[in-house]
Amino acid sequence: MRPDLLTTRHMLRTGQTHPVAEIEQAIDTAQSERCQHVFLQTTFDEARARASTPGILASPLVGLAVSIKDLFDVAGQTTRAGSIARSDAAPAIQDSPAVAQLRRAGAAFVGRTNMVEFAFSGVGVNPHFGTPANACASDAPRIPGGSSSGAAVSVATGAAFIGLGSDTGGSIRIPAALNGIVGFKNTARLVPTLGALPLSSTLDTVCALTRSVPDAILAHELLAQRQVTRSPAPLSAYRLGVVNTLMLDELDATVSRAWQRTLKTLREAGARIDDIALSGINDLPQIQASGGFSAAESYAWHRDLLHRRGQDYDPRVAARIQRGAAMSACDYIELQGARRRWISHMEAAMQGFDAFLSPTVPMVAPPIAEVAPGPERDEAFFRVNALLLRNTSVINMLDGCAISLPCQAPDELPVGLMVWAGALRDDPVLNIALQIENILQK
Amino acid sequence: MRPDLLTTRHMLRTGQTHPVAEIEQAIDTAQSERCQHVFLQTTFDEARARASTPGILASPLVGLAVSIKDLFDVAGQTTRAGSIARSDAAPAIQDSPAVAQLRRAGAAFVGRTNMVEFAFSGVGVNPHFGTPANACASDAPRIPGGSSSGAAVSVATGAAFIGLGSDTGGSIRIPAALNGIVGFKNTARLVPTLGALPLSSTLDTVCALTRSVPDAILAHELLAQRQVTRSPAPLSAYRLGVVNTLMLDELDATVSRAWQRTLKTLREAGARIDDIALSGINDLPQIQASGGFSAAESYAWHRDLLHRRGQDYDPRVAARIQRGAAMSACDYIELQGARRRWISHMEAAMQGFDAFLSPTVPMVAPPIAEVAPGPERDEAFFRVNALLLRNTSVINMLDGCAISLPCQAPDELPVGLMVWAGALRDDPVLNIALQIENILQK
Repeated sequence: MRPDLLTTRHMLRTGQTHPVAEIEQAIDTAQSERCQHVFLQTTFDEARARASTPGILASPLVGLAVSIKDLFDVAGQTTRAGSIARSDAAPAIQDSPAVAQLRRAGAAFVGRTNMVEFAFSGVGVNPHFGTPANACASDAPRIPGGSSSGAAVSVATGAAFIGLGSDTGGSIRIPAALNGIVGFKNTARLVPTLGALPLSSTLDTVCALTRSVPDAILAHELLAQRQVTRSPAPLSAYRLGVVNTLMLDELDATVSRAWQRTLKTLREAGARIDDIALSGINDLPQIQASGGFSAAESYAWHRDLLHRRGQDYDPRVAARIQRGAAMSACDYIELQGARRRWISHMEAAMQGFDAFLSPTVPMVAPPIAEVAPGPERDEAFFRVNALLLRNTSVINMLDGCAISLPCQAPDELPVGLMVWAGALRDDPVLNIALQIENILQK
Repeated sequence: MRPDLLTTRHMLRTGQTHPVAEIEQAIDTAQSERCQHVFLQTTFDEARARASTPGILASPLVGLAVSIKDLFDVAGQTTRAGSIARSDAAPAIQDSPAVAQLRRAGAAFVGRTNMVEFAFSGVGVNPHFGTPANACASDAPRIPGGSSSGAAVSVATGAAFIGLGSDTGGSIRIPAALNGIVGFKNTARLVPTLGALPLSSTLDTVCALTRSVPDAILAHELLAQRQVTRSPAPLSAYRLGVVNTLMLDELDATVSRAWQRTLKTLREAGARIDDIALSGINDLPQIQASGGFSAAESYAWHRDLLHRRGQDYDPRVAARIQRGAAMSACDYIELQGARRRWISHMEAAMQGFDAFLSPTVPMVAPPIAEVAPGPERDEAFFRVNALLLRNTSVINMLDGCAISLPCQAPDELPVGLMVWAGALRDDPVLNIALQIENILQK
């Protein structure tokens, strides 16, 4: 993998490389075979102009390449959210706040990245614009994970240093895990979701993919317009929990091996890691039995568009949005209340721990051919989708924060380690992830 | 009307009266004819004990009488919310935060006050426990207004200095206006609603009735656990608006006369009062066409109880709750979004004004006989209810704050002047009301 943003920024500021050389390398990668289906629109000339701007080295992002998930409003561009049903939508009048902050910070936007249509799954397949191939698999085209599929591949291949994306049930962390990079889902309220096409107004989180934890902190500080409090404490200063309810079930051989090895490595480095049940996780299916947030909240946004352009939707996406039509206001209000009570219960059970460790996803990326569009593969698709979202979506329901960082060996397909905690524990989670990244890279 | 709490506290601390004498006077009033149907449960011995507690004069409420709307949890008592359908509910395990704060501040709780069943109207009629008569009408028994009916009469008669209540569409301000006292509805989020039986989780506000604006500030400071910032600015320092969309329609002769006279008095005292349309108020019926918050949110709470004990509900209340069953999650989510957009639009239109003046309600209290329980009077009841709630409910939709204070002449039935503004403008509204109260009492 190419150096991360902070390393490259240091090289730029010390004259070891040049912004124009960096942007040309990113553009070359974006145009290469590895980035097929990754970009839905490119803005290379704008990126080149940005990198050449006098004084750009003084900005936080120093004119380096950043990609934008097709979900975000960019002034003058049409936000299609990976759908052809938005072909007649008007171009955005202004940048979404997330895009505006990155632009102000010196980002060179190379283009809009492909995604799961309307962000509605974790697999990464798109029947309209093609499916980006996983950046790390060489044996066969494997899924990139989603919904921020193109964002992850753009960062993993080197076409961008930061991939702006979103996470409603795992859409940042799943593709981070499957492509061997870092994905940080902050506590949702810390970053404005305005100007991002909504999936679930309750769960949507605006966040980013990066190549390292320090880069994740930089991106978060820009998006949230706040300073993360750094701690000099060693990993042994934290009490970590391994959650053995649900989250360790059905691990495939590669994930299981990487997971055991990682725990051993961290314990040898002094980490205090205890098992904890958090059996409240078992209550989630019952709480969401009436349909969950995404179906009802996305239906509220899509009702008119589905009516007008329903035939243009991916049938797998349309079917899941349509389910929201049947939900009553009463069930929705009870779901909001049940979630609040569940969070209180979980927060109490989590007392005494600084953060929790789990495999981000229980499997390595399966071949695209197994889950490609087509009704004959729908069953496999929905099974894979449910497994991919299983662990990550718990943290969205918890209103929490989580970071996925790579923990595979060099000869293994990517495996993600998820460090997570409840709402507004973002800074401890990031500090712990910094320590873990250092230990695992030794 | 008897002196307010702060005046009495001063008299107590300077030895001009005694806590036991004060509590006995309150209890005498509570047991008098004027307080028939006002209390659903009394705790006179507890109140006497509190007033006799050594050191009570050092507490903010100095052992003076406080009443609690039947909506609030009090440890060991059953919260019936004015309903017989809650007869089998278990006693509350702990005080609601609002009750706990008043208790800590030295309140002597004299009893639980009658209310509209489940707080579901502004008239104040209760078919189960009787309807408290308006404290100020001597010609005929007139309605007290609601839903905090008993709370208002307890404060207006002298059975309590503070009546703890709630306001979802006007339930503090309407009975304040009709009984000639003060009702302050703070910005909802400032006081916890926990332990108050919910009507609308979006709109419910925990607040209180008092005999003066300074007492309203004291009660609010205790309930919200914060200090109101006092301003020495004269009334002429503020720019006030008279909203001529909807809020001045259909004023009855007494309200119209009091309103015109009050504006004249305030202008003569230097107030800068300009007309403003705020025509966005006209959009509210369309925004709420799918049913509004109270129906859907109360149905979510009542679904099981209605199924089990529906025959015990006031049919006027049950019918309105039942309407919430038909609302879809989609319509509810759109209502939340429409409200957010409407608030933004209104906030923009309100720029440049410090607060607004309106009649709290457009009519004086009608006789109970016109709207008493009985299907033959349902049409009159719902017409009166809609008129009573018309002005006040705008401020709940706005997520705003408002205070009602008396502005009638000595020979008139009570008329309320409402001073209001958007969210978190509570302190300017209270400071303006202090000035206005001083001017009107001259």
